Amino acid sequence: MKSEFDFIQNIKKKYSLEKVGDDCAVLPKDDKTDMVITADMLVEDIDFRLYWTTPEFLGHKALAVSLSDIAAMGAEPKWAMLSLGVPEKLWNEGFADKFYAGWHSIASKFRVDLIGGDISRSPDRFIVDSVVSGTVPKGKAILRSGAKAGDALFVSGPLGGAAGGLQMLEQNLGEASCILIESQLRPTPRVTLGKILREGGVASSAIDISDGLSSDLLHICSASNVGARIETIPINKTLFEYFESDKSIQFALHGGEDFELLFTVPPEKNSSLENLPVTRIGEITSNTGVIELVRDGKTEILQPKGYRHF
Amino acid sequence: MKSEFDFIQNIKKKYSLEKVGDDCAVLPKDDKTDMVITADMLVEDIDFRLYWTTPEFLGHKALAVSLSDIAAMGAEPKWAMLSLGVPEKLWNEGFADKFYAGWHSIASKFRVDLIGGDISRSPDRFIVDSVVSGTVPKGKAILRSGAKAGDALFVSGPLGGAAGGLQMLEQNLGEASCILIESQLRPTPRVTLGKILREGGVASSAIDISDGLSSDLLHICSASNVGARIETIPINKTLFEYFESDKSIQFALHGGEDFELLFTVPPEKNSSLENLPVTRIGEITSNTGVIELVRDGKTEILQPKGYRHF
Repeated sequence: MKSEFDFIQNIKKKYSLEKVGDDCAVLPKDDKTDMVITADMLVEDIDFRLYWTTPEFLGHKALAVSLSDIAAMGAEPKWAMLSLGVPEKLWNEGFADKFYAGWHSIASKFRVDLIGGDISRSPDRFIVDSVVSGTVPKGKAILRSGAKAGDALFVSGPLGGAAGGLQMLEQNLGEASCILIESQLRPTPRVTLGKILREGGVASSAIDISDGLSSDLLHICSASNVGARIETIPINKTLFEYFESDKSIQFALHGGEDFELLFTVPPEKNSSLENLPVTRIGEITSNTGVIELVRDGKTEILQPKGYRHF
Repeated sequence: MKSEFDFIQNIKKKYSLEKVGDDCAVLPKDDKTDMVITADMLVEDIDFRLYWTTPEFLGHKALAVSLSDIAAMGAEPKWAMLSLGVPEKLWNEGFADKFYAGWHSIASKFRVDLIGGDISRSPDRFIVDSVVSGTVPKGKAILRSGAKAGDALFVSGPLGGAAGGLQMLEQNLGEASCILIESQLRPTPRVTLGKILREGGVASSAIDISDGLSSDLLHICSASNVGARIETIPINKTLFEYFESDKSIQFALHGGEDFELLFTVPPEKNSSLENLPVTRIGEITSNTGVIELVRDGKTEILQPKGYRHF
């Protein structure tokens, strides 16, 4: 089956869609400023289930996933639009009000203004499309395409927590971890870090980890025409309390939705990161399109296995 | 049940959402330009059915409904984002490619660039959220709130065709009209007219007819704090060939999705409209919130009955 990535590559080429392909599209705003914008659709029973989340968590997450794309560009979030498809039963229960309360709570923290959107009825599943826009000084948005061989590879936090939390929720595990479940239900977008990485010209490229480390790192490698070597796997330590070691590693390598930033830093900028809560996990190589993984002194080739819709 | 309009009014007040409430939100772009932006969600089995439309028509319509909002502001469309929720079966049949071909065909006509969006899997129904943005000289967007008592009331074309076409499609009527069905499946957004109305400062207010004449006129009246009197009902003549006279009138008054422009013109600007394909249907009054309908010399109060999701 053709993946959504193939579909997008195909229409990009066929119709010359030059703006498509990064975490956000970048558009000129005025002489000094670019505008960035992103859209994320969440569909019930694909991206979440109502028996394990709440309307408030869902409102939080709908905005957080888009803010994470804004963060990956190093931009300052400004405004948002929300389109909701709501089943009649949920509408009558006041679901939209609770969803919006959760949305507003994180929106006010990041000073995001709701400027519009749409409300439609939906036959039986809740759907949300979240659009968020931000601004960045002209030409300064951090793209996926700026990584160079020799750049160091960093992540903003441990990985796999959201995937572990999802498994607990889906399998209704008796013993569950609040930390992992919160990673899944209530992710924190790294907006402040994104701005720091952009302001000092620290990051040469960035992406947010939404599909999984292996898959999102491959996006950077493809866009930058480079390869990468992972020397340390940044695993959420709580995973080891609930899952086998190998499973925990798989969550960290291929589990999505941690919404941490994955970014590359040229050698001369490495010292700028000294006081930041980030971890160096490897290096960019000239081995185009290949991700090497070093474990126990041995190097293997990592096959990307992140989340795909198709 | 609380309508979607009540919900929006409620969150507007509760969270001070000042940009929400017109066909598009208006945002400052640069010293000379404002940006306008709109979102429209279409959900399978609510807004359309796959047994009576095609992916190409749906692609056309998804963009047309948003372009119609751009037209109502008098703006020039510029770029768009598309978020699709696609059931696996449709994905495998190449539905998204055909949808996008229909979308691109009207996009290229109006010079709209696709800059981004999202693709998600959906359990069993196709969903599209269409976001379109345009530009307008600073402070010149045509709002719903500018109508004044004494202004003439115009529409850009006959009404009711899309509602008649919908009834034919839904009831699978043996004898069907291509003209009416095309009004439903393949509406034409009045972008050029919108720009003419804005350029000469001709229209004091405007809205596109998406919910129905009675309902959309009430939106203008509420926003402008005025009333209106309809003296001529602009009915799509083809309706009379297939439906009873009274039914045809109901389609024209309350049927939605014609995507014609409804706008008001101050007396001194009336002559600017001489060579345009528009019809004067009545006048704005000071009878706040009341829509009068004059038929056969008698005046009745028109109760708005346009499309509502809830």
